[in-house]
Amino acid sequence: MIERVAIVGTGLIGTSIALALRECSFAGEIVGFDRSEPEREAALATGAFTSVAADESAVRHADVIVLATPVLAILDWMERLAHVLREHQLVTDVGSTKREIAEMARKLYNGPKQARFLPGHPMAGKESRGAGGAEAGLFRGAAWLFTPIGNPASALEAEWRSWVERFGARVMELDAERHDEVCAWVSHLPQMLSTALAALLEETFAGDPAGLAAVQAIGGRALRETTRLGASPYSMWRDVAMTNTEPIARTLLALEQRLANLRENLRTPELREEFRAANRFRTKQESGTR
Amino acid sequence: MIERVAIVGTGLIGTSIALALRECSFAGEIVGFDRSEPEREAALATGAFTSVAADESAVRHADVIVLATPVLAILDWMERLAHVLREHQLVTDVGSTKREIAEMARKLYNGPKQARFLPGHPMAGKESRGAGGAEAGLFRGAAWLFTPIGNPASALEAEWRSWVERFGARVMELDAERHDEVCAWVSHLPQMLSTALAALLEETFAGDPAGLAAVQAIGGRALRETTRLGASPYSMWRDVAMTNTEPIARTLLALEQRLANLRENLRTPELREEFRAANRFRTKQESGTR
Repeated sequence: MIERVAIVGTGLIGTSIALALRECSFAGEIVGFDRSEPEREAALATGAFTSVAADESAVRHADVIVLATPVLAILDWMERLAHVLREHQLVTDVGSTKREIAEMARKLYNGPKQARFLPGHPMAGKESRGAGGAEAGLFRGAAWLFTPIGNPASALEAEWRSWVERFGARVMELDAERHDEVCAWVSHLPQMLSTALAALLEETFAGDPAGLAAVQAIGGRALRETTRLGASPYSMWRDVAMTNTEPIARTLLALEQRLANLRENLRTPELREEFRAANRFRTKQESGTR
Repeated sequence: MIERVAIVGTGLIGTSIALALRECSFAGEIVGFDRSEPEREAALATGAFTSVAADESAVRHADVIVLATPVLAILDWMERLAHVLREHQLVTDVGSTKREIAEMARKLYNGPKQARFLPGHPMAGKESRGAGGAEAGLFRGAAWLFTPIGNPASALEAEWRSWVERFGARVMELDAERHDEVCAWVSHLPQMLSTALAALLEETFAGDPAGLAAVQAIGGRALRETTRLGASPYSMWRDVAMTNTEPIARTLLALEQRLANLRENLRTPELREEFRAANRFRTKQESGTR
């Protein structure tokens, strides 16, 4: 029975997990940890936490420890906690890449006398960062991916999964390598693309205020949607780029080549084939998500 | 006084114009022309048109003729109509590119004994194509660009502009060349990008149903928004690519280079600069549209 949950990183995802637990009537303790004073205060203000501290010791005594920081910090915490936790404790995370996390978990967790580790990744987010943007319903309808590392699931792990299901998330399992490859396509590539497009527009119109005004006045939903992710923070995406470099580089290269081919065929019938293939993808996507 | 409006092409935009005119209490005749029988029927069913025919003669007797077809068909109509219209008639259009249309207008319109031509471009659209998706409010809050070709505005032109304002559109004027360059950035590049990304995903996962299922299950808002325009029809975009080839090719090449640079810097501090520039663009964009 999970009686005490520790959430490391009380930002948007961490605090949303605390709120979701409370909405699903979790009655135990929820202790938060965050290095940032304003984040701690915003998290406390939601009323979901029993306490929020900058003192790591509170984290050690929880049944379940949720690492809700960017990926490199998750790896640091995994190393530090491995030496102080016991067999009956479960660590899980919400990191955007899973290969390096699963590798470290194989080394430091799930063995005899070691704590358990369940790598996880809720595919949820929103523009407003931090605890201030947190909401209990953030995971409703979203995929929550687990990339288990082979050992039979413990009772604690089964219970944590059942909480995630109660949050309204669609739980899915896949292999960590596959996770990182698929996420490169559906998440990391769209992010890099959107960042590159927004940065290119920023630079192109930097010395041309009239042009920028025209871009702002004329640009509609097409521009807004393709550059929206440009608002995403470097702090989180640096870690994604660091821990999933090869898959991201492969998808970027493939897209560069596809764009070059389209550019060379703006006046040929090949453009029709490109639109048809895109139309087919969208039709499948629509039918897949309904 | 505009008493009779002809709309050539009773698709999404053409029929939305007819509906907007009626909502703004236009009491005159609105005659529609479309080669497609189902489109004619869907347009008639809206109740906005006095009649919808496949017979060109109805078009000739209107005070204002709105060309609401893809760009190459607009150019064809401009040529055909130039010989049969009179000085007191106004032709305007809703084409997505303006340079070639303005060039032809300079040759065949606005001279002595020639009809007037006012190149226009409402920046509005939606997924559901055709008269069936038309709505009176489609232009509310959207930019409606005019690229006038230098002659003093006629009374008819002024009246047409006032109708467009009553539709709730934000009327803007700019030079046709500038229009095509800015639209390459804010509309054509996002379109080609979205088409290329969707087509690439379609091809990458064509022989991998499990992978496609994972893409559909995992892909969230990021994927949906960056590939949404992939549903756009070739028929319309072929004409855009044909009549704005060079500006589109330039923006595509710039983006390819930007993506390559980002790819080579996934693990360097340059990635931070790219995210910062993108963040700046988005901040300006937010403040520009509020």
